[in-house]
Amino acid sequence: MTLLDGLFGSDALATAFSDHARVQCMLDFEAALARAEARVGVIPEAAAQAIAAHCLAENINFAELAQAAGEAGNLAIPLVKQLTALVKRDSPEAARYIHWGATSQDAIDTGLMLQAREGLKSIAAGTDQLCELLAELADRHRATPMVARTWMQHAIPTVFGFKVAGWLDAMHRHRRRLQALTKGGLALQFGGAAGTLAALGDRGLAVSKALAEELQLPLPDLPWHTHRDRVLEIGGTLAMLTGSLGKIALDVALHSQTEVGELAEPAKPGRGGSSTMPHKRNPVHASVILAAAERMPGLVATMLGAMPQEQERGLGNWLAEWETLPEIFRLNHGALERTVIVIKGLEVHTGRMLANLELTRGLVFAEAAAMALAPHVGKGEAHTILEEASESAARGQQHLSTVLVADSRVTAHLSAQEIQRIFDPHACTGEAERFIDRVLETHRTRSN
Amino acid sequence: MTLLDGLFGSDALATAFSDHARVQCMLDFEAALARAEARVGVIPEAAAQAIAAHCLAENINFAELAQAAGEAGNLAIPLVKQLTALVKRDSPEAARYIHWGATSQDAIDTGLMLQAREGLKSIAAGTDQLCELLAELADRHRATPMVARTWMQHAIPTVFGFKVAGWLDAMHRHRRRLQALTKGGLALQFGGAAGTLAALGDRGLAVSKALAEELQLPLPDLPWHTHRDRVLEIGGTLAMLTGSLGKIALDVALHSQTEVGELAEPAKPGRGGSSTMPHKRNPVHASVILAAAERMPGLVATMLGAMPQEQERGLGNWLAEWETLPEIFRLNHGALERTVIVIKGLEVHTGRMLANLELTRGLVFAEAAAMALAPHVGKGEAHTILEEASESAARGQQHLSTVLVADSRVTAHLSAQEIQRIFDPHACTGEAERFIDRVLETHRTRSN
Amino acid sequence: MTLLDGLFGSDALATAFSDHARVQCMLDFEAALARAEARVGVIPEAAAQAIAAHCLAENINFAELAQAAGEAGNLAIPLVKQLTALVKRDSPEAARYIHWGATSQDAIDTGLMLQAREGLKSIAAGTDQLCELLAELADRHRATPMVARTWMQHAIPTVFGFKVAGWLDAMHRHRRRLQALTKGGLALQFGGAAGTLAALGDRGLAVSKALAEELQLPLPDLPWHTHRDRVLEIGGTLAMLTGSLGKIALDVALHSQTEVGELAEPAKPGRGGSSTMPHKRNPVHASVILAAAERMPGLVATMLGAMPQEQERGLGNWLAEWETLPEIFRLNHGALERTVIVIKGLEVHTGRMLANLELTRGLVFAEAAAMALAPHVGKGEAHTILEEASESAARGQQHLSTVLVADSRVTAHLSAQEIQRIFDPHACTGEAERFIDRVLETHRTRSN
Amino acid sequence: MTLLDGLFGSDALATAFSDHARVQCMLDFEAALARAEARVGVIPEAAAQAIAAHCLAENINFAELAQAAGEAGNLAIPLVKQLTALVKRDSPEAARYIHWGATSQDAIDTGLMLQAREGLKSIAAGTDQLCELLAELADRHRATPMVARTWMQHAIPTVFGFKVAGWLDAMHRHRRRLQALTKGGLALQFGGAAGTLAALGDRGLAVSKALAEELQLPLPDLPWHTHRDRVLEIGGTLAMLTGSLGKIALDVALHSQTEVGELAEPAKPGRGGSSTMPHKRNPVHASVILAAAERMPGLVATMLGAMPQEQERGLGNWLAEWETLPEIFRLNHGALERTVIVIKGLEVHTGRMLANLELTRGLVFAEAAAMALAPHVGKGEAHTILEEASESAARGQQHLSTVLVADSRVTAHLSAQEIQRIFDPHACTGEAERFIDRVLETHRTRSN
Repeated sequence: MTLLDGLFGSDALATAFSDHARVQCMLDFEAALARAEARVGVIPEAAAQAIAAHCLAENINFAELAQAAGEAGNLAIPLVKQLTALVKRDSPEAARYIHWGATSQDAIDTGLMLQAREGLKSIAAGTDQLCELLAELADRHRATPMVARTWMQHAIPTVFGFKVAGWLDAMHRHRRRLQALTKGGLALQFGGAAGTLAALGDRGLAVSKALAEELQLPLPDLPWHTHRDRVLEIGGTLAMLTGSLGKIALDVALHSQTEVGELAEPAKPGRGGSSTMPHKRNPVHASVILAAAERMPGLVATMLGAMPQEQERGLGNWLAEWETLPEIFRLNHGALERTVIVIKGLEVHTGRMLANLELTRGLVFAEAAAMALAPHVGKGEAHTILEEASESAARGQQHLSTVLVADSRVTAHLSAQEIQRIFDPHACTGEAERFIDRVLETHRTRSN
Repeated sequence: MTLLDGLFGSDALATAFSDHARVQCMLDFEAALARAEARVGVIPEAAAQAIAAHCLAENINFAELAQAAGEAGNLAIPLVKQLTALVKRDSPEAARYIHWGATSQDAIDTGLMLQAREGLKSIAAGTDQLCELLAELADRHRATPMVARTWMQHAIPTVFGFKVAGWLDAMHRHRRRLQALTKGGLALQFGGAAGTLAALGDRGLAVSKALAEELQLPLPDLPWHTHRDRVLEIGGTLAMLTGSLGKIALDVALHSQTEVGELAEPAKPGRGGSSTMPHKRNPVHASVILAAAERMPGLVATMLGAMPQEQERGLGNWLAEWETLPEIFRLNHGALERTVIVIKGLEVHTGRMLANLELTRGLVFAEAAAMALAPHVGKGEAHTILEEASESAARGQQHLSTVLVADSRVTAHLSAQEIQRIFDPHACTGEAERFIDRVLETHRTRSN
Repeated sequence: MTLLDGLFGSDALATAFSDHARVQCMLDFEAALARAEARVGVIPEAAAQAIAAHCLAENINFAELAQAAGEAGNLAIPLVKQLTALVKRDSPEAARYIHWGATSQDAIDTGLMLQAREGLKSIAAGTDQLCELLAELADRHRATPMVARTWMQHAIPTVFGFKVAGWLDAMHRHRRRLQALTKGGLALQFGGAAGTLAALGDRGLAVSKALAEELQLPLPDLPWHTHRDRVLEIGGTLAMLTGSLGKIALDVALHSQTEVGELAEPAKPGRGGSSTMPHKRNPVHASVILAAAERMPGLVATMLGAMPQEQERGLGNWLAEWETLPEIFRLNHGALERTVIVIKGLEVHTGRMLANLELTRGLVFAEAAAMALAPHVGKGEAHTILEEASESAARGQQHLSTVLVADSRVTAHLSAQEIQRIFDPHACTGEAERFIDRVLETHRTRSN
Repeated sequence: MTLLDGLFGSDALATAFSDHARVQCMLDFEAALARAEARVGVIPEAAAQAIAAHCLAENINFAELAQAAGEAGNLAIPLVKQLTALVKRDSPEAARYIHWGATSQDAIDTGLMLQAREGLKSIAAGTDQLCELLAELADRHRATPMVARTWMQHAIPTVFGFKVAGWLDAMHRHRRRLQALTKGGLALQFGGAAGTLAALGDRGLAVSKALAEELQLPLPDLPWHTHRDRVLEIGGTLAMLTGSLGKIALDVALHSQTEVGELAEPAKPGRGGSSTMPHKRNPVHASVILAAAERMPGLVATMLGAMPQEQERGLGNWLAEWETLPEIFRLNHGALERTVIVIKGLEVHTGRMLANLELTRGLVFAEAAAMALAPHVGKGEAHTILEEASESAARGQQHLSTVLVADSRVTAHLSAQEIQRIFDPHACTGEAERFIDRVLETHRTRSN
């Protein structure tokens, strides 16, 4: 664990994308390959057992591995060497069959797919948990008035639950993408030196099928060494998810500003505080989530830029993926975990929401007032009256209702009480609740 | 058309993503909105007809629009103003109902979705055409021997059709992604000032449904103004496709090198030539395709970075998309069209492929030789013999077959004729043909 | 001019980076080359005159050029063809000497350098103007109290001039970088087919020197066709400048929020308003500036990714620069022009700044209070007292001064009047003014 | 050290940018701050000594630090807490003065600057070493003929030393940039809670000056918490350098292809080999260097995207730098070290270079032939003759010299011997040597 793992990482993903897991997943490939080849009759059963028995990351000397990788150009070559030495001690015959017919990239890419499968599980679970929390939050605040802001300026009234339903709606799409990815986005990599499995003669495909079964990974139509779209799809999907988490975090941070005060991250001793500034509640989680979202574009760009790989094995481009995709997983899951914490304990200051609605002295109700007047004077005239009234209220620092009550064009049709009712924030949120219901309905359908 | 459109763009996409199309698609939104609102009874039928009648980009003063957008901050505000002025001349009453209940972003985002739908059609068609060409090419060269190269070094024999099948296999995945995108990735944007459709009272959802029908766009669970994952998914899908096109182009360029000479882009007067250097056949198409692939990462990064958008309307981040997504479409389709041209007319120099296989004096057959020997001496011993023989051949600049024929460990088991057969490039391509068949089978299934 | 040029572009740069300018600058290279070669005696003086006389973009058929570039792979080949045809009509002999000894990239890269020189002039001038405005604004508000915000939370008092001085300080560094770039960052590109100027025999260097003089561009040690760091340095410098403009814009937008209300972009009919929401003052300029800043990372990434170019001429990577660097210039200058407008007309609401300082009921003065108390009770004890008092004020929703006045540990040392003075925002801004002075001093030194 | 540090990292930078160094540099800030404050009389001299005595990374519990940073949002807060606890044990009084008047960002940014200073030293030294090696290589091969390739196609003859001089020329510019950066690009960060040093009353600037002296870092005009261009300039400079290293690596890899065979990375047991494919010499170093170059664009994009930071302290954007800049240093230095190894031991196969020049049967000498003929028949006619002869040679698979010897338009002016001399690769490399001399002259001037 590095110093900043506590800040940016997550325990679950630290496990799936640790150096240990990286090595273990490559060893899982080697063990499964030996078993598959024994099943098909390419290598002796005893050799497969001997090989599989040694495929434990605990047996590997990591420092030596790191050193040797620097010369070999990848981890698989020195890993196979270490494994061979281990097996040789017990069974020199079996040692000859290690990695039989495979190439380094087979072990590395398949290992990556196994890590990704674990990582995606954690991320899917986190997303599900987040959806539950958001659904509950949206429902709870389906009638909590607040002001909607566009260009960071007050616009018109809305409800807090509508904002949350928007967050949830995005998560629904990400959940669907994660499901599609888990179902169709992973694949075995097994092609030997140049993809043709030539070293296995006419039994390459049979071994491939057995190997795919062993590892429970889909067998692709053909090996995909230099075709990296699968890897990109994983990274891109997680990056998009992180972007949406960043949007939630940005909203939380904006609504937590001292002047706004509508939301606050859950308080906890030692988090985001300042001993001399007790009024401060720094949005630490939001900042970390935003940092993850800031870093995704560059990481995905690296992977996209590495797509055109040379012939049957890439040069630097393939290597450029090795630390980049794990970083995407790490940052994404760290951000996801923090979003769950934020939403779970989010402080919602409904009083401040109501108070802020009044900051512009009724101007955010101008649209609602025009609508109330329209049936009486026509839409165009209603619009004109409100324009003038709003302008006059703003100039005179009066409440818009005060101006309307004094305007005979309005009072000819609406009583003072009717005018006051216009400024009820509960009365002018349009389809907000029905939109919330639509999203919650989707949530329920998905969850079952 | 700018000077470099001829190089990087494509006619089809130039149409779908021209300034004219951008404006027309926003006007299509305005016309459909008026019709939908008339259907639901929100505005008079006559007004809808009057509005729709003027919704033609030809009526718009583009220079004025560009100028006014600079102050308004987007195109929709001044466009609605121009449209209003146009309608007003004929029907002042109707003019009041233009853009009724909508916000600028509704027109801009829905307009974008309409453009994207057209763009995706062209790209899907281009991808289909490319798949056909690749399938035919893979099949034709299923038994054309060439050397496979890893790290840009000769590795072992393969067939050209296997390489092409790899290109095709990637395209199959992209085609599936494009289909999923066309089916589920587009959506109506319609939410009014802050997403709640408040200005339409309790008829917002009804208008939404009618509008979605008018435009044949899916109705989302709720408006998605500041949730940009849909837009990202479009851009990311095209970028991945371009990355795979870049891989094809890179292969073509590498195989077209003077020293390699195995492939060449189709010749055409004025293309890629040099009057004083007639031996040159510059891979112009490949270069343009690679340029598109080089630019995708940055463009997608821009869009990913713009995902966290503020509250109910973004600031600069939303604006950052406006030229970026169209650029992705333009470059992607330009690259796709050129790839179709390259594959359609690709010169395949099978003689050079064969000759290059011999460059290392048989060393690329070492693996095959070991396999031939293994049944007689065991896999381990076969491997040892070949290591020594290869080393000796390399040192002595002899052909590997010459060395083997002189090695009693080999001749004890294999006749001179049997040794020669090892060096038949047709005999050692493993599962290449079966892999090709798998990909072609998928192609046929997909195409029907 | 495209539709969105009014939003993102600028008139000055539109001129320097128009298609017309691109062609003219390449023609300037061709004319200067002919003159230089005539001076050195490589081509006849008459030919040089005939060639130079036709080097006007007005003579060029742009549509044809665009079309032909699509086949040739660059603009220079078809441009030289058109130029040759033009010259040939008057002087068939002279036509033979066009582009003598040069390669396409010589014309394209040198043309780019000429465009960049013009562009950098505009940007340097804009930066100078911005520095003047910022210096004046910082000086004017050297004693205007406002609250400083960290993590978007109120921290401690500061003055507005300090914030502006920070903006200016960054601009000073950018101005220095622009100067260094203008002085040492540009260079002639002239190397012929492969950099050796072989076609000019032993007079290549002499022609180079004459050509560098003609164009007033530095002569590099050797041609730099595939060494793109110079081009990167230009793009990177502008991107960093844009990043700093984005920081200013973000501050303006944050301080313009309805709840904050401390700053506003200059008002203008038609800009950023909304007829039904007169309270809204959308930060349109800030948004456009932020959009430019959002797009820079992707554009610079494209150029950086294109640096490793093949051998003596790049493939797609070189092409990837052609639209990217101009876009960087365009967005940078557009952002710069808007920042000048914003700062020139910036509304500074000093009343709201003062009022916001009071929002936390004195808590932002806690640090100042501890300092006042420390000489009497020691720093540690002072700190403890203020922690408790702040906590108590926050809990009881009391003003911190009220709590302090009631605390005998405080009143034992400070009178009520002395306590009140602590809460004078002018009294606790530390070195703010001296820092402002340092920046203004640098400004004055630089300007002279 | 992670598993892949052996591949991508370097020992020197692993030290400068280890977690240990990160913590030590922050502690160096704290120690220097205490000393500076004691010098100015802000804190007692004894306290400063007590504090400084504990500022050793060895005293810090890293696991606890990482954990706490996750809540605090940065490393400085929990680090100061640990330091305080340590000092308190010996001297409770001194513990009160730790971090006096400073903010977390002061420690973090100044710590980063101290790390950067160390890192830049290693990188400057590596660049110097590389320049020496390149200068020697360029000089040694100033007359080694090879073919120049544009668009990866044979163009005209050149010398290998010219290519190397091009690499060196780029390094000269990077060296100059590194020097400028070391001289003017670093700066102390010290501003307290909001940049005004308010907690230090009127002695903030005095402490700043003393602190700058203690750390030997330039004192900026004012603190630059949310102005990140300095940090960007460091990252951008290293990224550009890496891009140029990537260009060298790409050239090495292209020239090492089996078919080309002109260069090879230095051989070493265990590096880039394959037991069954002894003909393979995988360009492992080049691949790692290229991987670094592939990753730079994304990393720099992240930092550029993080430039617009909020008000007086950024949110996620600042955090996004924390792992990104160290990664830039790590990858850059790893690439630099490997480039030094490659150039130091580069195998140059001059025989293959000569042989490849002949691959096109003299066509790469067409330009030279035209030049030889021009004095006799005029430039235009010479050009026409060579066009026809080249075309004829290519069509008939004859050597160009054979065609020329049979062309009476040529033999009328040139003897067979004179014609043969044209095809001497030493005779037609233009100004290559003089360009090499110019670069070597700059090298000598710089080195002294």
